[in-house]
Amino acid sequence: MSQDRTLHHFPLDPASRQVRLALGEKRLAFSEVQVRYWERPKEFTTLNPSGMTPVLVEGDGAERLVLCEARAILDHLEEAHPEPDLLGREPAERAEARRLITWFDRKFENEAGGYLLHEKMEKRLLGLGAPDLANLRRGREGLKTHLGYVEGLLQEREWLAGRRLSLADFAAAAHLSVVDYFGDVPWADFPAAKTWYMKLKSRPAFRPLLTDRWPGLNPARHYDDLDF
Amino acid sequence: MSQDRTLHHFPLDPASRQVRLALGEKRLAFSEVQVRYWERPKEFTTLNPSGMTPVLVEGDGAERLVLCEARAILDHLEEAHPEPDLLGREPAERAEARRLITWFDRKFENEAGGYLLHEKMEKRLLGLGAPDLANLRRGREGLKTHLGYVEGLLQEREWLAGRRLSLADFAAAAHLSVVDYFGDVPWADFPAAKTWYMKLKSRPAFRPLLTDRWPGLNPARHYDDLDF
Repeated sequence: MSQDRTLHHFPLDPASRQVRLALGEKRLAFSEVQVRYWERPKEFTTLNPSGMTPVLVEGDGAERLVLCEARAILDHLEEAHPEPDLLGREPAERAEARRLITWFDRKFENEAGGYLLHEKMEKRLLGLGAPDLANLRRGREGLKTHLGYVEGLLQEREWLAGRRLSLADFAAAAHLSVVDYFGDVPWADFPAAKTWYMKLKSRPAFRPLLTDRWPGLNPARHYDDLDF
Repeated sequence: MSQDRTLHHFPLDPASRQVRLALGEKRLAFSEVQVRYWERPKEFTTLNPSGMTPVLVEGDGAERLVLCEARAILDHLEEAHPEPDLLGREPAERAEARRLITWFDRKFENEAGGYLLHEKMEKRLLGLGAPDLANLRRGREGLKTHLGYVEGLLQEREWLAGRRLSLADFAAAAHLSVVDYFGDVPWADFPAAKTWYMKLKSRPAFRPLLTDRWPGLNPARHYDDLDF
């Protein structure tokens, strides 16, 4: 099967990680091509003119389907491979999962993850020099606010969107896991969030993410530890 | 019917406009509450803790469904009111529409609309002083690049995602229409984009957007002109 499905991704991209988690949870095999998106490789921008990862290519010849951007891929996977279902079945469950996906993809990224990953990751990849300390501080403050929000949700829920694992958990875990790679998540101050993340880390779908390494970017010591 | 569906929105918010266009196209009546989101009114953040518009509230009592953020609302409308269908039926059509929604919501907003609306709209709403000319220039350059992209797509297609009107057209038109309110779209240089926008502007679903006015923010003279 895996030769029929190829994911073009960057291992430390939160959007790519959401797709890898969904593919893993649905037990859909795939081959992978790692993309140095910041170099805008031509074979990749031909697939996706935005130049952004992830892109999933399914099938071949006249049956070839090119799915660009996480939203298109995740929605397609729900439609084409509905089991296990990762959005919920009731309108209210689906709305809550989708609300939280926007929360993490937009609000978390704007207020926390974006600052931290730009300063600690992209500047290295692009050779842009040392991190800006004011931005790191902004990112860490934002991160605490968002962890507090997650902590609050988990007082009343087993998973972020409710009683069942959903794409909302994968969105949150994808964003947090990249920040965690760089050692910036103060898990000890957010015990419910930590327990939730430990449960996610233990799922088979999460394993490949824990083995990700990128040259020149070393993970924090606890990054792949299931008992951090 | 309209008392059963209330949209909380800001008239010049591109995300809110996508929802208004979809509701209009599906002929779903609704009442509206205009939200001064930048003041973070408590009755609104109780509905949506992110503080962002739009929010759609359907039904009442035990049947009440609160849909926060454009993605959750638009996907729900497709699921609950599939006619007319605004994503296409084939996986490739749906993937293309979703790719373009991400393009406009993320790339267009980051590279063009975000600069222009922050400088021309948000600074006025928030009393933050005069626009920064360097940001206006960045926004206008980005806008030209994106209009060029739209122009290219429309050489081979009647609508942005293919042969049929879709949420991709509404995403693009929602973002462009707010920029157009402030008179910044150089339509004359992009004739195919202009024709496409004229077709959209003539649809009944678009009419309410053309009557939007906000105190202290005057629209460009051609804003509501169907033959601009």
